Amino acid sequence: MSDAHSARRERLREHCSASGADAALITRPANVRYLTGCPPVGAALLLTRERAVLAVPEGAEPGDGGLGGGERPADPEVTRLPVPAEADAASVAAEAAARLRVGDLAVEEHDLTVTRHRAVARIAGAARLLDLDRAVERLRVVKDEYEIADLRIAAEIADQALGELLESILVGRTERHLAMELERRMIDHGADRAAFPVSVGTGSHSGLEHHQPTDRRVEEGDFLTVALGARYRGYGISTARTFVIGAAPAAWQVELHRLVFHAQRAGREALGPGVEQHVPDDAARSILQAAGHAERSVHALGHGIGLEIREAPRLGPADMGKLDNRVPVTVGPGVHLPGRGGVRIEDTLVVRPPEEGGPELLTITTKELLAL
Amino acid sequence: MSDAHSARRERLREHCSASGADAALITRPANVRYLTGCPPVGAALLLTRERAVLAVPEGAEPGDGGLGGGERPADPEVTRLPVPAEADAASVAAEAAARLRVGDLAVEEHDLTVTRHRAVARIAGAARLLDLDRAVERLRVVKDEYEIADLRIAAEIADQALGELLESILVGRTERHLAMELERRMIDHGADRAAFPVSVGTGSHSGLEHHQPTDRRVEEGDFLTVALGARYRGYGISTARTFVIGAAPAAWQVELHRLVFHAQRAGREALGPGVEQHVPDDAARSILQAAGHAERSVHALGHGIGLEIREAPRLGPADMGKLDNRVPVTVGPGVHLPGRGGVRIEDTLVVRPPEEGGPELLTITTKELLAL
Repeated sequence: MSDAHSARRERLREHCSASGADAALITRPANVRYLTGCPPVGAALLLTRERAVLAVPEGAEPGDGGLGGGERPADPEVTRLPVPAEADAASVAAEAAARLRVGDLAVEEHDLTVTRHRAVARIAGAARLLDLDRAVERLRVVKDEYEIADLRIAAEIADQALGELLESILVGRTERHLAMELERRMIDHGADRAAFPVSVGTGSHSGLEHHQPTDRRVEEGDFLTVALGARYRGYGISTARTFVIGAAPAAWQVELHRLVFHAQRAGREALGPGVEQHVPDDAARSILQAAGHAERSVHALGHGIGLEIREAPRLGPADMGKLDNRVPVTVGPGVHLPGRGGVRIEDTLVVRPPEEGGPELLTITTKELLAL
Repeated sequence: MSDAHSARRERLREHCSASGADAALITRPANVRYLTGCPPVGAALLLTRERAVLAVPEGAEPGDGGLGGGERPADPEVTRLPVPAEADAASVAAEAAARLRVGDLAVEEHDLTVTRHRAVARIAGAARLLDLDRAVERLRVVKDEYEIADLRIAAEIADQALGELLESILVGRTERHLAMELERRMIDHGADRAAFPVSVGTGSHSGLEHHQPTDRRVEEGDFLTVALGARYRGYGISTARTFVIGAAPAAWQVELHRLVFHAQRAGREALGPGVEQHVPDDAARSILQAAGHAERSVHALGHGIGLEIREAPRLGPADMGKLDNRVPVTVGPGVHLPGRGGVRIEDTLVVRPPEEGGPELLTITTKELLAL
C-alpha cells in the first residue's frame, strides 16, 4: 500500500510543478489520509519535490477509523515530525517549509481557517502562499482497485447488518433502537464505524432523507426506510431501502415503491464513463415528474463517495462534467408524502464501461418491496 | 428559553458595539446554537443592532443532538432565511448584511475557511470585514442555570449507563462491545447521543486517554478504564473510571489507583472562583510527580465543557487566567505504564464558591477501586 500512497504523492507533485508551486501543505484530513495512509487526527503533510514530511500530534488518538487492530507499517518515504500538545500541525509543517526554503507553497484554502492561514503565512517566513484548491479532491475522484476493494467490503458489511435486521421482529421497536442495532451489527461485522449516523424512519417519517431517528415505534402497515453505511479502512458507502410492515401493503404503498424503484433503476442504468453527471439524475427525475412528484425531490440523485461520505462528483440536475471509469457514486432517489411517509432506495455503485459489464453494484440487498 | 437566547444575543451586541462592529456573522455551529437555540446543521446567524437573521439550509437535517421529539418553538425575534440546496448559509447571511447596509461586519475568522471568507467578503459588498475572534466562545464560558441543568441530566445519564454496565458480566467481552453497549444505554436513558466516542481500555490499554476500543477481551486481573459522556440538549459531560476485574487486585494496581485517586481529588478540591487555571493541574501533577510519574502525564488536567466537549478554559500547567463561578470543567488525571496498563479518573464539575458548598460534582459514580 505504501507504493500506492507514493504514487498518489507523485501525481500531486506533478500537479504542483504544473501550477508553479514548489511544495504543498495538506491539512484536510481525508486528503492527508489519501496521501499517507492512516495518520492520526490533526496531522498535516508537507510535500516538496524531494520530501514528504508528516507533522503528527504527540499522543494523538489513532486516525479516525483506523485499521482496528494492527498498525499500518510506517511509510519509509515519509518523515515524521512530532507536534507538541496544543500546537497546530499545519504550523509545524510550515516551519519545516521555512527550513527547507520553500518558495511557493500551495495550501488548502478551502480547509484552512483564516486564523490558521495567517499563522501558517507568518511561520512559513519567506514562502509565498498559493491556493492548492481542491487538487487532492480531484485526484481522489477516480479510485484505484485497492480503494474499490475496501468499498466492496464496506458494502458487504452494511448488507450483512441489514439482512440480519430484516430477520428480526420489528413491530413495537423504536427508530432509535433499530438505528443503534444496525450500527452495532456493522461494527460486529468489522466496520471501523458507521459511515454516517444510521437513519431509520417509520410511518410518516419514512422516505425522508437525513431523518434523525426518534422514539416512534414501528407499527403494522408502516413504511420503514433505513439508510445506513459502513466505513472500512476509512472508505464509506451508503445505502437505503424501504420496506413495509405487515403482510399486505396498501395499494398506494405498492405504487409509490414501484415508482421509486423504477426511478432508481433508470438512474443506475444511466451511469457510465463519459456520461454527463446530470444524465442519471435526469433519467430518475423524469420518471418521478411524470408521476407528479416533481417538487418533492429537490436533492441531487447522488454523489461520489469514498474517504468522505459525500465527495465529487455530484449527480445533480445542473452538473455538467462527465463521469469517469472507476468512480464510486450513490444513486438514491426518494419521494416523501408529508403526513403519510414515503420511499427512498439508494445504492452505491462503481462506474464501469459496458465492456466490463456496466456499473458495478456494491450494495446488493434486494430492492423489492419486502413485507416484514 | 428564547428569553435566555435573547439575553445572550444582547451581550454579543454589546461586545460588537464596544469593539466598533455594526453586526456579527456567526458560523461556528456551537455558537449559532448558543445564540439561537437549536438550529439545523449548517446555519449561520447575522446579528445586527436591531435584527437577528438566521440563514437555514432548506430541508436540512435537524441540529446535531436535537431535542429528540418535539420541535423547539420558533424564536419570535429571529427571522429565518432559507438557504438553497448546495449554497452556503454564510453567503446567504452576508447577502442579508449587504441588504441591511451593514458597515463593519465582524466574522469568526477561526471558523471560516479562507475560501468561505473570500465569498463572504465578495457578497457582503460595501461591508468591511473585521475579526470577531472567539467573542462568543468567551460568552459561553460561564453557564446559566438552564445550561447547568442540562449538564446535570447529561451526567446522570452517563452515571446510569455506567452503573448498569458494572452490574453485568464483563470477563470475555471485547472493548468494542462494551463501548457500544455504553453508548446504547446512554441513548436509552435519553441522551441525544454519546458526547464523544466511548473509550474502553482493558489490560495494557487501561489508563490511556483517547484509547480507541479494540477487539481485546476483558480478562481476570485486568484494569478496565472506561471514558464516556452523554450529550443532552446539546450539552455534553465527560467522565472516566478505572476498575479491576476479579476478586483480588494486585498490589501495584491498588497503589496506582490510590495515587491517581488522590491526584484527582487534589485537582477537584483546588477548583474555585478566582483560582488560577493552572492551580488544579499543579495540585494533581505534584502528587503524580512525587510518585515518579511526571513524564507519563503530559496532558492538561482538564478543560471547560458544554456545547463543545473541549472548550475554554483549559486547566493546564501554563494556563494563567482565573476560573469563574458557574464554569463546568473536567478534572481527569491519569497514569499509564506502557505494557502494563494504568488508571484514569475523570469527573465533570461546576466551579462554585465555598459558600455554596464548593465545586458541584456532576458525575457521581464511585471513584473507589471496585473489583468486578
